[in-house]
Amino acid sequence: MFLSPATPSSLLEKVFQHIDLHQDEFVQMLKEWVAVESDSVQPVPRLRQELLKMMDMAADKLQRLGASVDLVDMGTQQFPDGQNLPIPPTILAELGNDPKKPTVCFYGHLDVQPANKEDGWLSDPYTLTEVDGKLYGRGATDNKGPVLAWINAVSAFGALDQDLPVNVKFIIEGMEEAGSIALEEVVRREKQRFFSSVDYIVISDNLWVSRRKPALTYGTRGNSYFTVEVKCRDQDFHSGTFGGILNEPMADLVALLGSLVDSSGHILIPGIYDRVAPLTEEEKQMYKSIDLDLREYRNSTQVEKFLFDTKEEILMHLWRYPSLSIHGIEGAFDEPGAKTVIPGRVIGKFSIRLVPHMNASVVEKQVKWHLEDIFSKRNSSNQMAVSMVLGLQPWIADIKDNQYLAAKRAIRTVFGTEPDMIRDGSTIPIAKIFQDIIQKSVMMLPLGAVDDGEHSQNEKINRWNYIEGSKLFAAFFLEMAKLH
Amino acid sequence: MFLSPATPSSLLEKVFQHIDLHQDEFVQMLKEWVAVESDSVQPVPRLRQELLKMMDMAADKLQRLGASVDLVDMGTQQFPDGQNLPIPPTILAELGNDPKKPTVCFYGHLDVQPANKEDGWLSDPYTLTEVDGKLYGRGATDNKGPVLAWINAVSAFGALDQDLPVNVKFIIEGMEEAGSIALEEVVRREKQRFFSSVDYIVISDNLWVSRRKPALTYGTRGNSYFTVEVKCRDQDFHSGTFGGILNEPMADLVALLGSLVDSSGHILIPGIYDRVAPLTEEEKQMYKSIDLDLREYRNSTQVEKFLFDTKEEILMHLWRYPSLSIHGIEGAFDEPGAKTVIPGRVIGKFSIRLVPHMNASVVEKQVKWHLEDIFSKRNSSNQMAVSMVLGLQPWIADIKDNQYLAAKRAIRTVFGTEPDMIRDGSTIPIAKIFQDIIQKSVMMLPLGAVDDGEHSQNEKINRWNYIEGSKLFAAFFLEMAKLH
Repeated sequence: MFLSPATPSSLLEKVFQHIDLHQDEFVQMLKEWVAVESDSVQPVPRLRQELLKMMDMAADKLQRLGASVDLVDMGTQQFPDGQNLPIPPTILAELGNDPKKPTVCFYGHLDVQPANKEDGWLSDPYTLTEVDGKLYGRGATDNKGPVLAWINAVSAFGALDQDLPVNVKFIIEGMEEAGSIALEEVVRREKQRFFSSVDYIVISDNLWVSRRKPALTYGTRGNSYFTVEVKCRDQDFHSGTFGGILNEPMADLVALLGSLVDSSGHILIPGIYDRVAPLTEEEKQMYKSIDLDLREYRNSTQVEKFLFDTKEEILMHLWRYPSLSIHGIEGAFDEPGAKTVIPGRVIGKFSIRLVPHMNASVVEKQVKWHLEDIFSKRNSSNQMAVSMVLGLQPWIADIKDNQYLAAKRAIRTVFGTEPDMIRDGSTIPIAKIFQDIIQKSVMMLPLGAVDDGEHSQNEKINRWNYIEGSKLFAAFFLEMAKLH
Repeated sequence: MFLSPATPSSLLEKVFQHIDLHQDEFVQMLKEWVAVESDSVQPVPRLRQELLKMMDMAADKLQRLGASVDLVDMGTQQFPDGQNLPIPPTILAELGNDPKKPTVCFYGHLDVQPANKEDGWLSDPYTLTEVDGKLYGRGATDNKGPVLAWINAVSAFGALDQDLPVNVKFIIEGMEEAGSIALEEVVRREKQRFFSSVDYIVISDNLWVSRRKPALTYGTRGNSYFTVEVKCRDQDFHSGTFGGILNEPMADLVALLGSLVDSSGHILIPGIYDRVAPLTEEEKQMYKSIDLDLREYRNSTQVEKFLFDTKEEILMHLWRYPSLSIHGIEGAFDEPGAKTVIPGRVIGKFSIRLVPHMNASVVEKQVKWHLEDIFSKRNSSNQMAVSMVLGLQPWIADIKDNQYLAAKRAIRTVFGTEPDMIRDGSTIPIAKIFQDIIQKSVMMLPLGAVDDGEHSQNEKINRWNYIEGSKLFAAFFLEMAKLH
């Protein structure tokens, strides 16, 4: 039987209908992907095997859609303790190479943050569990759900025997949560090959600022992650037999960590604000139109009071000012109970989110200088070592580009509203890497709602966001074809 | 065959010979006891079962020596999370009730601190491993080894068909490392029964200050253990999506912990030194005769530099001045790797070692007042809760008592030297409890060397200390009989 090509609008209707009819299958597929404990953060051989399995499953899925798939070997990751672990391969895949169509490359990642039921999950983090239209599970929103939504959109055209309106490429990695190790090198190496035909790059790895209103993202903060180790000796001490005569490493470390930020959130490291872009009147105006209901935001985040009382101040401190967070301490007593130990060697962990035009290398120097200054003033007999273990630059895009226009139209079609034009406080290093290396337009098109809890206990994606998001990507393909 | 009673000195020779000949059996018995993971600190059902097993093994051993043994039910321990765990029974045992002999009661404990191979143990902590005359294993010196040394001494007389020179009682508990929960009540209840005939109480739960020279201990510090919880919400946050707009609990906690002690070890809590006993000239002189080779002490402890440079200052800061140690943080990121989390709720843990005439209740008020003051000055929107989870008073004894004289003589006989007259910086709460309730002389007669590493990785007892310690207890029995 011969199928006549559908008109764009009737085709879109058919695609939407197809997606609605098959939504349970799409949720089932997400369930299968969430079931894989693809944690790239903890350096554990078993978890690396899960990661490898995850990448194989995704490659298989893409091949079954008709894509040509390349699994790029990423080598191994060496740890300070001498351990060597495999880095999961990066997927490079393509569907269609019609020179008359624009080529859109989708970036996603299939690794996840650590999650343990005991940390306060209400359901098993690796069993996707639906409650009131919410799909709970580690990676549901960050980033397995959005990757599958893109795949669902592509598959809908195929299932209806329709040509894709655009050429589609995929780059899918498995080390995003661990700082996208070795990915930059792949992008650089593939610049003249895989990426040579790419016109646009789309990333869907962040959240809206609202529960219901979609957003388009044109900037992300960078991140510089530090460890500061204070060591007396490798063994711990008993606080009865040594308490009172030692420079205790924990006392030194607490003083060092306490010197970083004041109780108003202001970072105390000298020079840290020097390169922060000045706030223009034009930029200031942009924050006013963002749809952020502070009362709802407080409710959905369960935070009674933020450091700032206005929407504009909150958004600016999430997007265009740096922040410093202390994550924890390795090597001290961290379990329930009352252990009377003096830890012999402790490692404090903190990170600074970077904004335009801060630079990770400059921040590294400032942090080291500051901590060495504080430590030397303590006159402690311990040894201190500061290390920047991750240094990821901030990113900002040109929002007047074609794909931002196409995405706005697709959002209007699917959601009946203008998107919020936002930045993201978190770090998606690949945006900056694509911008710098491929030198094509990069856009972030998030699907998840503000309360999805990525990186947190009880991470979820709403079934509505996941399914409408699949439609959004399909509509975006058609708008891109029109604009081309 | 009729055995004539041996004279004390020839009997002592026989006992020493017996102990030397059977030392491998004694080490084997210690190995069996160390193999039981009787950790009372971590509130885990499996570990409580191990504790119950440990107490049963000890009761069985004492019964086979001919002792009458009573296993006192201690009820259950309730945790803040609602969990209920059994408290292991306390052993009350007795051998002999000759009214012409003095009655010496030995106190020991069979529970241990937590230990994991991964924390830096060179051998499995629950497999007693002998290397160069050192017996490595959790509990080897604290306190399974010394308990068995006392049992070895008792068994030697029995094996030689000789009457014990003294009546011996045992009180052996399984919750010392968790603060001797409910033991005080047992001592109080048994004051008129089990303890009514007790003349002296001996504890062997601390260390010498030297590797080779024995010691007698006449005082211990107390301990007040605090938790300070800072909470924004129960869930964690992602530092990208929330960093910059929160009063982060870790920043508050680090500031609170940083306000407790300065880099010279001086505690900054107002009023904390008010009740510390003034240093008399007589006491000052006592520290001069203690055999502490600072160079050897630095080597054996692997600490390059202490807060003080003289023997006297070091001993005074371990024994007669309070100290504050920060143990760690529960609820923050404590694993290897770089997790970008803002912990939502964190619990800091620290303790203050108390000295005469400090009082735990007074210290509790001072700490709470101080932390509330610091916290209110931060103007944080988080909630803070301070709790003293253990409050153990310091203890000091009269060193002119008979049993101190007997112990000095026994030490001269076995080791050919005068003991160091020392205090202990750590807390053995039962000493103070016995002194207050039973109102009999309490003595601490340690067997372990200064480098035994109790509470630490690679805890050990030297084979020499264990075996000569068994002889010391036997010699002590005979000296007590002579003095009576």
